[in-house]
Order: sequence, then structure tokens, then C-alpha cells
Amino acid sequence: MKVFLNGEFIEEGAAALPVTDRGFTLGDGVFDTMLAADGSLVDADAHFNRLLKHAAVLKIPVNMDVEALKKTAHRLIGQPASQRAAIRTTVSRGPGERGLTPPESPQQTILMRVSPASDPSTSPPPHLVIAETVRRNEHSPLSRIKSLNYGDNILALMEARGKGTDDAIILNTAGKAACATAANIFVLIGGELFTPPVSDGAMPGITRQKLLPKAIEKSLGIEDMMEADSIYLTSSILGIRAAKSLNGRKLLDLYRNFPIAA
Amino acid sequence: MKVFLNGEFIEEGAAALPVTDRGFTLGDGVFDTMLAADGSLVDADAHFNRLLKHAAVLKIPVNMDVEALKKTAHRLIGQPASQRAAIRTTVSRGPGERGLTPPESPQQTILMRVSPASDPSTSPPPHLVIAETVRRNEHSPLSRIKSLNYGDNILALMEARGKGTDDAIILNTAGKAACATAANIFVLIGGELFTPPVSDGAMPGITRQKLLPKAIEKSLGIEDMMEADSIYLTSSILGIRAAKSLNGRKLLDLYRNFPIAA
Repeated sequence: MKVFLNGEFIEEGAAALPVTDRGFTLGDGVFDTMLAADGSLVDADAHFNRLLKHAAVLKIPVNMDVEALKKTAHRLIGQPASQRAAIRTTVSRGPGERGLTPPESPQQTILMRVSPASDPSTSPPPHLVIAETVRRNEHSPLSRIKSLNYGDNILALMEARGKGTDDAIILNTAGKAACATAANIFVLIGGELFTPPVSDGAMPGITRQKLLPKAIEKSLGIEDMMEADSIYLTSSILGIRAAKSLNGRKLLDLYRNFPIAA
Repeated sequence: MKVFLNGEFIEEGAAALPVTDRGFTLGDGVFDTMLAADGSLVDADAHFNRLLKHAAVLKIPVNMDVEALKKTAHRLIGQPASQRAAIRTTVSRGPGERGLTPPESPQQTILMRVSPASDPSTSPPPHLVIAETVRRNEHSPLSRIKSLNYGDNILALMEARGKGTDDAIILNTAGKAACATAANIFVLIGGELFTPPVSDGAMPGITRQKLLPKAIEKSLGIEDMMEADSIYLTSSILGIRAAKSLNGRKLLDLYRNFPIAA
């Protein structure tokens, strides 16, 4: 399978990053994950526009525009692939000297890679726990962009797996629910659908954006989460997934008869 | 110049990371920066013991022990180099499939690289600002380890540079001072030396550890910082550096006649 790296389509095994890439050394970059279904890109404009916007938050110049990114993604999914694929685009500030100071003229790294994405409806609904080892930092611009700094999310996921569950709800530093480890959350309480605001540390996901007109943005404490009838995880790859339980408390799947069913 | 990468010494230009390395894709790793002066490693045991401890926090196995790491570092600084050099050792969880789930049998990446380190006393003392764009997350274990997630610190440094200063003091989410962007801080107020506790988001630096017996660990608010007579930045590469100003307010350099002079 070929990947796209800095203007070239090369076999993944031959694609290589310099050891000085600031994406590797410092987490200095952003990424996007988009779905391709039956050979079509899903919400490509929204995804690539967001990627460029998020790169701009870190002041990383990107020498490709949305059209060029779409063309590249199309070419990648033209390879023999599964019906459902995930396209991950990673942009880092590129190679740099030791230390934090960004290079004056960064040669950014742009990597695009396609992987098979299984249909989430074929796997059982996830059991969730509220993460205790880590909080999401709503006081950082990084909580609002898809940066390469996923250490907190990995810690939360490892905690969830260690407890025999599938995923974790991450609270922000004020104790309000922010997101799951790689998904936004929507919570059904008493017939109303709520989702944490971006100011609480929710990453502005594309699927979240599409569901937003049907939901109320509201800070959700632990007590709200434990009163929820249903909790949905949303992401471009997952779509809308109802969770099975939170901290051992069973949740309902009201997906089919609820208006959020797209 | 050669680097050490996964058991081999190779020319830096030929050293390459797979595009699936989780250090690059997710910030899933840790690092250490150590000083070598006149061909000797400074505090090598403390540095490499800490690196292994920090990798363990992320449950990343490391197939080298402290002795092997020291031997490698010695071989690297045996190359024609400057009198002062920085040795950066980076450990990531290695290549992984798309998504956050760590591989069951990770093949970790171990990279060691040496760069010239200028003598900090030859550059003017840094002007500081208190970062306003970002807060440090003292509620995350990542604040206590040297992980690859340096996005917040880069944002704070870019803010400082954008304001015409050299470095930033980063507050934690409770508004207490935690650190500079790549250094610990010690603050002299009324003849007493204070430093933020690790629970406030201070990374347990090796130089900090050595100075700790001479200081009092205490939470420091903005008002404390603005009353400081002197502020020192400490790191293995910087040593102990007195700052010149904070938010435009001049600071004294009491270094020479103060007991912290090592």
C-alpha cells in the first residue's frame, strides 16, 4: 500500500521520516482522520478545512490547499482497499534543531495514509468508565484542535482497558465531561440530548458539528453522566455509537427511535 | 554525525523513522536531555533512571538498561563534537496501527542524538512573560514526566517570542506557576528561595532535584511571581539561569551572592 509523503506516493515500507521531525520529537503538529466509504470521501471539505485551520493555530504553514488534499486522498483510496477506509492526514512542522524554538522557515511534513476501517456496527457496543488517571486540559488551545499530543487520551484508554472496559470518558480539570478518548460524546437525559461545549474541552468534531442542531451544549458533571439514559460516542470513523454501560451502570440504546438517527 | 537508532549507529541523514511510529502519530513516548561537558556525561545515572521510570508511566517497555544507555551515550560523544553537547534520548512505543490502542507487543523506538550546546552564560539573561494562551495540566500524569507532548510548551514559547521576550512562565489550571517552557523555576522572594511542587505541574527536573534542599516547595500565584526579587530557570542544559525581567518588571540577578550558586 502506498502512502503520500511530502508530495510523493511511496510504498509505506519505504516511507521514512527524519529523526529530527518535530512531530516525533515534540508533538508539534496536527492531524485529521476521515472516512472513505465505497470509494467516496465523506465530508472531505469540512475535514481538510479544519485540518488547515488547526495547523494555523500552531502557525504551521501547509503548502497544499483543500483541493490538492482531496485529490491526494482520492488517489490513495483508488488503491485496492476495503469498502470502508480511514484516511489519516498528519501535518507536522517538519525537521528542527534540538529544543523548542520553531525553525524560521519550516519545511512541514505532510503524510496521508489509508487503512481499512471495520464497520463499527459489527462490534459490540462499548462499555465505558470515567477516567480517573487523567483530566483533559480545557485551558489549552490544544483541547480544541486535533494535535499530535494524544498522551492523555492514551493514558485514559489504557486505564479503560485495564479495567476491562472499552473506552473512557475524560473529565476536564473542572470535573466536567469533555469527550471519550477518540470521540465526542452526546448524552441523553430525560429525553433531551446534551453535548459538552468546546469550552469544556470537547474537540470540535465533524460528526459532532453535524449533530449539534439536535442537541443542547451544556456542561455535564459526573452526576449528569451517571443519570444518563444513553451515551453516544461520535466520530468520523465510528459514526454514532451507543455505549452499553458507564462505570458498570447499564445504558439504553435509544438510537433507533430517537431523532438523532441520521 | 552519527545517531543511535534501535541498536545501530547510523549517519543522521540515513536514520529514518517509520511513518507509523506512535511517537510521531500520537506523541506516545518520553525523552531525556542530558549535558555532556568536556567529554563527560553529567548526571547520567539520574537521567537514564528517570527516562526508564517515565517510560514505565506510559507502560512502554525499554530493551536497554541504564548501563547500556550510558555506553551508547559515551560512544556518541566520542565523535568530534563541541566541548558542550546535549544528548537527547527519545523512547517511543514504536510503530502501531491506526488508532490509539497500543500494540500488544510494542517494538519501541530508541533514538539517541548529540548536538552542540552553547554555553548559556554567553547569551543575555532571558526576559520572561507569564503565558496567557495556555495553562499546564497538573491533573495529568504527563505534567510529571518528560513526554513527547510538548504542544502546550511550544504555544507558550511562541507567545513569549511574539511579545518580544525569550521565554514564558506557564501557570497551571489553578493559576499557580508551574515551570518555564523547557525549564523548572526557582523564585527568590524576601531572601527565601521557592519552587513549585510537582503537584502544581512542575516536571521533576534533575537540576531541580539537586537544588531542592536549598529551596521551599510552595505554590506560587501570579502575585508571588510579580513580587519576586529574582527568578531562576533551571535545566540540565541551562544550569541555573537568572531571568532579566517578568512581564516587563525588572528582576535582580542575585546569583553570585546567593547560596544556590553551586
